[in-house]
Amino acid sequence: MAMKFLSDNAASVHPAVWKAMMAADAADAPYDNDALSRELDARFSALFGRDCAALWVATGTAANCLALSAMVPPHGGTVCHREAHIEVDECGAPGFYMHGAKLMLAEGESAKLTPEAIAAVVEPIRDDVHQVQPHAVSVTQVSEYGCAYRPGELSAIADYVRGRRLALHIDGARFANAVAFLGCSPAEAALGADALSFGFVKNGGMGAEAIVFFDPELARQTRYRRKRAGHLQSKGRYLAAQILAMLDNDVWLDNARAANAAAAEIAAAAEGRLLHPVEANEVFLKTSAAEREALRAQGYEFYDWGMDAARLVTAWDTRPEAAAALARAIAGL
Amino acid sequence: MAMKFLSDNAASVHPAVWKAMMAADAADAPYDNDALSRELDARFSALFGRDCAALWVATGTAANCLALSAMVPPHGGTVCHREAHIEVDECGAPGFYMHGAKLMLAEGESAKLTPEAIAAVVEPIRDDVHQVQPHAVSVTQVSEYGCAYRPGELSAIADYVRGRRLALHIDGARFANAVAFLGCSPAEAALGADALSFGFVKNGGMGAEAIVFFDPELARQTRYRRKRAGHLQSKGRYLAAQILAMLDNDVWLDNARAANAAAAEIAAAAEGRLLHPVEANEVFLKTSAAEREALRAQGYEFYDWGMDAARLVTAWDTRPEAAAALARAIAGL
Amino acid sequence: MAMKFLSDNAASVHPAVWKAMMAADAADAPYDNDALSRELDARFSALFGRDCAALWVATGTAANCLALSAMVPPHGGTVCHREAHIEVDECGAPGFYMHGAKLMLAEGESAKLTPEAIAAVVEPIRDDVHQVQPHAVSVTQVSEYGCAYRPGELSAIADYVRGRRLALHIDGARFANAVAFLGCSPAEAALGADALSFGFVKNGGMGAEAIVFFDPELARQTRYRRKRAGHLQSKGRYLAAQILAMLDNDVWLDNARAANAAAAEIAAAAEGRLLHPVEANEVFLKTSAAEREALRAQGYEFYDWGMDAARLVTAWDTRPEAAAALARAIAGL
Amino acid sequence: MAMKFLSDNAASVHPAVWKAMMAADAADAPYDNDALSRELDARFSALFGRDCAALWVATGTAANCLALSAMVPPHGGTVCHREAHIEVDECGAPGFYMHGAKLMLAEGESAKLTPEAIAAVVEPIRDDVHQVQPHAVSVTQVSEYGCAYRPGELSAIADYVRGRRLALHIDGARFANAVAFLGCSPAEAALGADALSFGFVKNGGMGAEAIVFFDPELARQTRYRRKRAGHLQSKGRYLAAQILAMLDNDVWLDNARAANAAAAEIAAAAEGRLLHPVEANEVFLKTSAAEREALRAQGYEFYDWGMDAARLVTAWDTRPEAAAALARAIAGL
Repeated sequence: MAMKFLSDNAASVHPAVWKAMMAADAADAPYDNDALSRELDARFSALFGRDCAALWVATGTAANCLALSAMVPPHGGTVCHREAHIEVDECGAPGFYMHGAKLMLAEGESAKLTPEAIAAVVEPIRDDVHQVQPHAVSVTQVSEYGCAYRPGELSAIADYVRGRRLALHIDGARFANAVAFLGCSPAEAALGADALSFGFVKNGGMGAEAIVFFDPELARQTRYRRKRAGHLQSKGRYLAAQILAMLDNDVWLDNARAANAAAAEIAAAAEGRLLHPVEANEVFLKTSAAEREALRAQGYEFYDWGMDAARLVTAWDTRPEAAAALARAIAGL
Repeated sequence: MAMKFLSDNAASVHPAVWKAMMAADAADAPYDNDALSRELDARFSALFGRDCAALWVATGTAANCLALSAMVPPHGGTVCHREAHIEVDECGAPGFYMHGAKLMLAEGESAKLTPEAIAAVVEPIRDDVHQVQPHAVSVTQVSEYGCAYRPGELSAIADYVRGRRLALHIDGARFANAVAFLGCSPAEAALGADALSFGFVKNGGMGAEAIVFFDPELARQTRYRRKRAGHLQSKGRYLAAQILAMLDNDVWLDNARAANAAAAEIAAAAEGRLLHPVEANEVFLKTSAAEREALRAQGYEFYDWGMDAARLVTAWDTRPEAAAALARAIAGL
Repeated sequence: MAMKFLSDNAASVHPAVWKAMMAADAADAPYDNDALSRELDARFSALFGRDCAALWVATGTAANCLALSAMVPPHGGTVCHREAHIEVDECGAPGFYMHGAKLMLAEGESAKLTPEAIAAVVEPIRDDVHQVQPHAVSVTQVSEYGCAYRPGELSAIADYVRGRRLALHIDGARFANAVAFLGCSPAEAALGADALSFGFVKNGGMGAEAIVFFDPELARQTRYRRKRAGHLQSKGRYLAAQILAMLDNDVWLDNARAANAAAAEIAAAAEGRLLHPVEANEVFLKTSAAEREALRAQGYEFYDWGMDAARLVTAWDTRPEAAAALARAIAGL
Repeated sequence: MAMKFLSDNAASVHPAVWKAMMAADAADAPYDNDALSRELDARFSALFGRDCAALWVATGTAANCLALSAMVPPHGGTVCHREAHIEVDECGAPGFYMHGAKLMLAEGESAKLTPEAIAAVVEPIRDDVHQVQPHAVSVTQVSEYGCAYRPGELSAIADYVRGRRLALHIDGARFANAVAFLGCSPAEAALGADALSFGFVKNGGMGAEAIVFFDPELARQTRYRRKRAGHLQSKGRYLAAQILAMLDNDVWLDNARAANAAAAEIAAAAEGRLLHPVEANEVFLKTSAAEREALRAQGYEFYDWGMDAARLVTAWDTRPEAAAALARAIAGL
């Protein structure tokens, strides 16, 4: 197991999560009427220091698309990065959930947006009925290339977004890694957001993410949309249990720190080869085909990233010795 | 726990399922590329004695709606019973998944359809562009009132359906209870179906149902639609593990038999009060408000069913002594 | 031409409409930026004695569905009569335009709704996420059977609708016939509506209906939805011209009176045979197959209405002598 | 009127069209059951020299989106040029009609696609469920910049498209202008297409375009979708009349030739300023703000095209003397 650097998506489940799930085994009310699910709002409100409403769903795709569909009407648009997960990796889920609403693609280094990049998409749009009008912006914290938005960067985006009366969504599939890297509060790492997809699956959960709404009205209607999308699980208590176990004792943060540390160790051995700053648990490594072959021959598994690079992903359960060994192997290329 | 007769939806998870999930903890490929997920087609093909393609999803709503959306174009219709789950209990999920396609409501005793009931909906529809044309029929095995279609009944429906070039979907949220009751093969209990939503959640699973397609082309496109609906879980191996554990050693059948037996014991004590034949794990009991109050005072939990009835649902984990006690309590009313 | 009683849908275009269309031939701004289209708001505001925003579209189906989609979210529902045009005759257009939102079918004499009939649908719906929640009610003025809602009836419906915080839509494909029959103001015939589909096509127009919004915000977003539905015609001035020509000199009202009068004459000759009160331009006539055959042998064209009835529809251009002749033919059966 | 070079969208209606519409005034069957509508298939089959099925609709947006929705499932994608009308000017109509299916944007000179440009979009798409798969390609004949695809260019695109098992749609809002310019047969100008949006509105019609399907099964289901989109007009005979009048005596071709000739005259006077080859009825003219001001001061109306250019559009009814005058004015800048 320890030599896999393919994806945090396939990591194992954290023992605290297993334990919490099993503790939830006694029958309780179905759907999200159980005691654990009813705790979520308060727990996330405490974490973010403000009133939140939080809903569990099984996947990040569902979290992102339900959040966005609460903000964007079917005839509207969402600005996101050209390489955002919602654009590239969700098989058109935003189009499905938002009933044909459009993704409007912006540019930006390391898959991060800036106010300028958003403006370059938004400003040329004429306010007439022939063009889709933007209603929201979605940023990814950390970005597809593992780079974190600083609170100041989010603040600048939030200012632009408010000025244009848009809503702000954060895809936080790796939000924990961002908070671990930034060393700030969760609230600062989600500054300005109306909704946050807070990921737990990649970080030690089994199949539970939280959609955290900072506007309760958005949550209210999303409860209907979640059911309508087939995402209201009968035994929701097992999803709530996962999330609560991750929040207890900051498991989410410890796990992210472990994954980040493993990536940092690899990155330290590969300085000249890094395509993006390594701020979370992903390393994009300039490598020739022969070099990648050499690494694989030593037992390391990872994905190619185009012709000239490899993507190496660590997870909460990456063994330190495996990361260290990979670091040495890279240094020795 | 044992006095709850509210819903099989909230039952606990079977030990074999827990064990299988934990055995799947080692990292494997994400999504449905893992070894367990790749076993599903073969396992269901063996079970049904013909080529099947099977996909896991977390909920029955997703199973039903993905199956139907493979059969029915957005401008088409699906005939179902007026009290079918897809019509009554899914918050409009069929409309979402089928992009506005219509449910066409038929009548029938105990929420079961007949060829005549289907024809009463289908035949008056003129073949012109002003009216939605039917493309599929969905039946529920067992029905919303816990009644099983006999193979002969399904065969008659299938004949009608084929004659009109419609597709046939079976909502099998409690398919195991049907097979247990009928004492027939799974194939006979799903006779004529193009797709079956095979339920495991109510029967000892945690959050995994199977969509079984008897036409592989339907499965092929559904794989895209499942991802697009946010139902392709990253750690799909835990869902596959649940299903396989239920199929191993006929756990699914044993669990259904246990639930059916508990319901039968209750039913035997309540003969004059039964609103529907008790063939699975649901008992609809004519009772006055005072009688229901009396039962609740003894610790039994269940839902009212309108003004004059109670719905009692048993599950795989209903303790026999609890069922026996309830039976006595009913007899003593 | 004069013996056709098939449908007002196929009637000819009124001379005043032709004249206005030709007068609009000089190039003007495209879409709805031309001088005529820009007159609509003011003209309908004057007609209804309150601020309105009005949009032209080519068909009643588009008018109904755009109006409803401004009121009902994709996860919501609309109560309408079981025989309403939106349910029966639009090939699922409401499902398309409202993205899967549901029609909830109510009963009622002569296809008219009452507060009680609406309540019978609405009140049993539990306020939980498993059931589609109603967001609007749609009534048809005049109903599918040509019967008009009196202002008092609308007022009672409006009271119920407001009490439940629902929106009210009126399908006025034959709204002119209602006003002509009721002898009241247009405002009284549309009492309580948030939006009215005001029909002109059946009443002397060629291809232009008005969606009249009594809430400007609904109109604002509908302008985007109209374009998105392909209903923003490039040469919108020809549609505006039709509507304005009908409003000028009360052509709309005169035409409706003529059609109503023709129907009344037929009805007077058929008293014992009338299935519904004849209040507009439709006569539903109890007749045997042999009787219908006899009428057709005399050159009258009309549709059968089931086994035992005929539907006879007059139009603005029905010649009085044709109506009189048909009346005699019916009396002579 | 003659000094307007804003848009062919707002041009007047050709006398032959008016005449045909008035000749259709006698009541006939509603919808598309009238004698004129029933002629369309045969007339287009004759024009294209092969079996076609043709449907009228009021707008190019509806024509494009209905055609595409017959080819592309909701989970699929359509490759088009980044500046295609369906991407830029239809307020998201493709997303609405195709239920969230995606437009995949390709590059190309003068808004024309090539096999290479299409391949650059299609080939990187992995055949897995995370990415939207392409199902169709849409090209615009003539392109947004008024440039025509030669038969050989279409043939190369068609070869690629067939090789990838995609469908081919042609947006022919100005198809007549293409045929007029190319001097080829309509079949050659639509080579390889499965469906063609054949525009008449910009070319002398009032509100009627034809969707020409070269595969009758696509037309069959589109008849339902047209109704469902509210585009089946009651008095369809007036739309059929427009189209037939344009086909009679090659009015469509003569009109396009007139518009092209006017544009050619303007282009001849502006050689060094042309941003794109002038092959149809659009001239994109490099001009300073001061130059545009000077032209406007002389009474010419047109749109700016960004900061440094003007778009001048001629129409069938542009008076030759107006075009000549504008040519002189440009030459004199």
